[in-house]
Amino acid sequence: MADNASAAEPSKSAIKKAEKQARVAAEKAGKVAKAAKQAALPVVGGKKADDIMGMTVKKTENFSAWYQEVVLKSELINYYEEISGFFILRPTSMYIWNTIRKWFQEGIEEMGVEEASFPMFLSSKSLEKEKDHVEGFAPELAWVTKAGDKDLEVPVAVRPTSEAVMYPYYSKWIRSHRDLPLRLNQWNSVVRWEAKQTTPFLRAREFLWQEGHTAHLTEELAGEEVLQILELYAGVYEQLLAVPVVRGRKTEKEKFAGGYYTTTVEGYIPSNGRGIQGATSHCLGQNFSKMFDITVEDPTQKEGEGAKHIHVWQNSWGLSTRVIGVMIMIHGDDKGLVLPPRISKIQVIIIPVGVTKNTTPEDKTKMYDQLQDFKDTLKKVKVRSDYDVRDGYTPAWKFNDWELKGVPLRLEYGPKDAAKSVVSFARRDTGEKGTIAISDMAAEIPKLLETIQSDMYAKAEASFRSHRVVINKWEEVVPTLDSKNVVLIPHCLAEKCEDQIKDSTKGAPDESDGPQDQKAPSMGMKSLCIPFEQPEGIVKGETKCLNPECGALAEKYCMFGRSY
Amino acid sequence: MADNASAAEPSKSAIKKAEKQARVAAEKAGKVAKAAKQAALPVVGGKKADDIMGMTVKKTENFSAWYQEVVLKSELINYYEEISGFFILRPTSMYIWNTIRKWFQEGIEEMGVEEASFPMFLSSKSLEKEKDHVEGFAPELAWVTKAGDKDLEVPVAVRPTSEAVMYPYYSKWIRSHRDLPLRLNQWNSVVRWEAKQTTPFLRAREFLWQEGHTAHLTEELAGEEVLQILELYAGVYEQLLAVPVVRGRKTEKEKFAGGYYTTTVEGYIPSNGRGIQGATSHCLGQNFSKMFDITVEDPTQKEGEGAKHIHVWQNSWGLSTRVIGVMIMIHGDDKGLVLPPRISKIQVIIIPVGVTKNTTPEDKTKMYDQLQDFKDTLKKVKVRSDYDVRDGYTPAWKFNDWELKGVPLRLEYGPKDAAKSVVSFARRDTGEKGTIAISDMAAEIPKLLETIQSDMYAKAEASFRSHRVVINKWEEVVPTLDSKNVVLIPHCLAEKCEDQIKDSTKGAPDESDGPQDQKAPSMGMKSLCIPFEQPEGIVKGETKCLNPECGALAEKYCMFGRSY
Repeated sequence: MADNASAAEPSKSAIKKAEKQARVAAEKAGKVAKAAKQAALPVVGGKKADDIMGMTVKKTENFSAWYQEVVLKSELINYYEEISGFFILRPTSMYIWNTIRKWFQEGIEEMGVEEASFPMFLSSKSLEKEKDHVEGFAPELAWVTKAGDKDLEVPVAVRPTSEAVMYPYYSKWIRSHRDLPLRLNQWNSVVRWEAKQTTPFLRAREFLWQEGHTAHLTEELAGEEVLQILELYAGVYEQLLAVPVVRGRKTEKEKFAGGYYTTTVEGYIPSNGRGIQGATSHCLGQNFSKMFDITVEDPTQKEGEGAKHIHVWQNSWGLSTRVIGVMIMIHGDDKGLVLPPRISKIQVIIIPVGVTKNTTPEDKTKMYDQLQDFKDTLKKVKVRSDYDVRDGYTPAWKFNDWELKGVPLRLEYGPKDAAKSVVSFARRDTGEKGTIAISDMAAEIPKLLETIQSDMYAKAEASFRSHRVVINKWEEVVPTLDSKNVVLIPHCLAEKCEDQIKDSTKGAPDESDGPQDQKAPSMGMKSLCIPFEQPEGIVKGETKCLNPECGALAEKYCMFGRSY
Repeated sequence: MADNASAAEPSKSAIKKAEKQARVAAEKAGKVAKAAKQAALPVVGGKKADDIMGMTVKKTENFSAWYQEVVLKSELINYYEEISGFFILRPTSMYIWNTIRKWFQEGIEEMGVEEASFPMFLSSKSLEKEKDHVEGFAPELAWVTKAGDKDLEVPVAVRPTSEAVMYPYYSKWIRSHRDLPLRLNQWNSVVRWEAKQTTPFLRAREFLWQEGHTAHLTEELAGEEVLQILELYAGVYEQLLAVPVVRGRKTEKEKFAGGYYTTTVEGYIPSNGRGIQGATSHCLGQNFSKMFDITVEDPTQKEGEGAKHIHVWQNSWGLSTRVIGVMIMIHGDDKGLVLPPRISKIQVIIIPVGVTKNTTPEDKTKMYDQLQDFKDTLKKVKVRSDYDVRDGYTPAWKFNDWELKGVPLRLEYGPKDAAKSVVSFARRDTGEKGTIAISDMAAEIPKLLETIQSDMYAKAEASFRSHRVVINKWEEVVPTLDSKNVVLIPHCLAEKCEDQIKDSTKGAPDESDGPQDQKAPSMGMKSLCIPFEQPEGIVKGETKCLNPECGALAEKYCMFGRSY
């Protein structure tokens, strides 16, 4: 199993401090609300309450604390206080996840993947069949040892992934090459009882994902599917979340435990210059089919030759709610969350302005009716909108509240707009303001939302492109990392060399996380992937691995970085 | 928690024997296939293989064994052999469940219910807040006590339902009456480590469901929602699964542990005359909001009166994969599964006939192209079809195979049909045969599928109606039950009286399950629900409870029956 965790350790104390800061702020906000509740008063938009209800940490100043605060205050997440390392996904998160689910599900249905549901528990017997696999997961297994007040005869573990749950049945169900390909996917949650620091979406002890498990007759057929799935994963990031990714293959060191090879989409977090694994599509080769005895007769054998059996070629691939965390880190800003329109539950929030004490009830009703008309108009062109007519809150307070929640487009409507038959708008991503004629809303707003979507992608893509630096001199590696880049270096792809590199790039102060007084030594870099799209420059048999302690020949440019 | 289980106990040995019978048959089938596999031969449609691959138990002769066999052989289910009481849902099952999910999800979205995802574990601390609730679930809780090789400081239980997981957060999130209603639903699986005999779909240690948890300002608002949801549950049965249900309220004895009242849809299994709980929608009243401190200020209080707090009114409601089991038991027959068209993954199976050794390759290609045309034509009118061109199997073998799998409509196409420009059809539900002009397929087949759907419902509805017998004489109760009916009797609705009735209706030999030599004493009857639609005949203050040992006045007609 690829270890993406060690990255978090050096700055643990920094994270803890930042977390505390965020929680104190959240508590303060809670107290204000509670006080208001006790006084039977709404939390009105006075200057002080605004500040406390909104973001208190800047993204550039303390990225970890900012992240913790934004996921809480935008109501994506609640910490599960009863058991540490678990999180509650609130409706805004689930809307995003369900949008991804629908999109990906359509893609795999078209490929002929079917859905199944296997039990959440596995016996130690099945687990132990694949040794590398069990070693990877054993330290994180949650064991059920009791039912009611009785001890179980044989304890069972909650699945950390389902290879060992499913493959005994693949062995039963696959009886002939005509049963191939067998392609099953399930949407569920898995449990990995991490000892390391957990972070909402990025590292949780339970997380939602899909896991696809397929069996094929040949390596080629399996390999084709691995890439088709990887392309769907890239699509989730690029088309839905407006997040650019690099497609590539994991090194031997970082591949899936017990697998043959792992392909991956890798993201990049500009705020701290770290790489982050996006999603992985594995070819398991025949390792598992040999352990679980999944064979078919060779369809190419001639009559009279006797039965010759082939072990099937297997893949497994998974995409988790981690994608949401990557999206938040890339697009969010000091005001809070910034959601790409395609995955935002509310795409347009409409806020009445210019309602004063002098507004007559009739004028107010007329105006609110108009807001409903806007909503209806937008619904017809499949734009998800809502209006905010909460009493007791100023427009400014509402602006902040919806900015915090990341809604892509704000419309304002008041007497001045009405006089000109327009609505005013403000983009969440750029802050750009303007007006749209009411008669043009149905045509212009869907276009504007798509512009926001593509602008968000373009901005993130430009940032990743400019921070992916090809390096051919070892001395430049650490300074380049320190300037928040990931690097592409000629590499031998050997595991031992990777270990050395991780070690020899450690230690410079890490300015990416936390304020000055919380500086911790920065982590070493690790390999993110061997990008499919290779820079030119490696001369076979000549170019050496960039690691000065290595001396071997370079095989490929490999992308390295500090990483989640 | 309502106990639907005790019903199964008296005939445990019968079930075990039947199960074994089904398994032996399945094993035999497996051996034949395995032998064929080893010989590198397809399992060809010889007479003997046909018999073993198809159903071996008749629905009328041994209902339990028939059920076990049909869920296995139609490939809905696989037993999870590693851990008893768990089942694997295969693609046909998941298709049904996902169809239900989509339909229900649309219904609740329209009502404003949002989706969330809470952790699967709960701490004993939260669990213990509601005493009746914890007592109901404690014996079935699966406890995680270890992570990796370390003991957890505090063990955690896998959720059996999520009241205790969710409500601490309702207390946090609900700060004002403007936060009401709060309506969250989640689709997940829950674990109840049943000590009793498990049965695929009906009683499993882990099952898929949705659980909705909502909070309202008043009893009236909560009550309205309880019934809206119940109507959606009835719709799942009646509109999708072609299964009739009776809507009603549970008695105090059978209501949800810790709740205020429970509404239910109840089904009926003609083969053994048993009632079966379909799905329940509970009003929890203020019991949980008091325990979890979920309050809002009273919006009706006047200024200067001081803060007055109201505990919110809560509901919870759940629908599980049990629905699939009920559908199978009602519609299936001696040939296997019979699926209503609306929930069948494949609605129409097209089988080529009349292909012989003398058929030229050109004619065969032409014919198979025609099958693809049929499929395309049907796809355009949203009919899900496939064709079966597996070599080495006779049409008769294929007919049996698809009948076993329950596909609602079979089309046959051969040279004779081609000559007349028709396709032949056979309905799965009635066996009715006929022909349809190829030019009429796009218009006629969707209609025919809807006819099958409504005929299946009408047949099941007539059966349930005629076996719901109003009884006003105690002596008639047991004979009526013995004739595979459920009964409606005037009842006092008291818990103690129900216990007596269960006891005094026990003991006659149960002919519904198992062959003669496996007869077990039949179970006593229990209350299924107090139907909303009441027969006439109770005179308030006059009519007595039918239980001769009771003597109290009757409150309502209550539906009783032997039950799952």
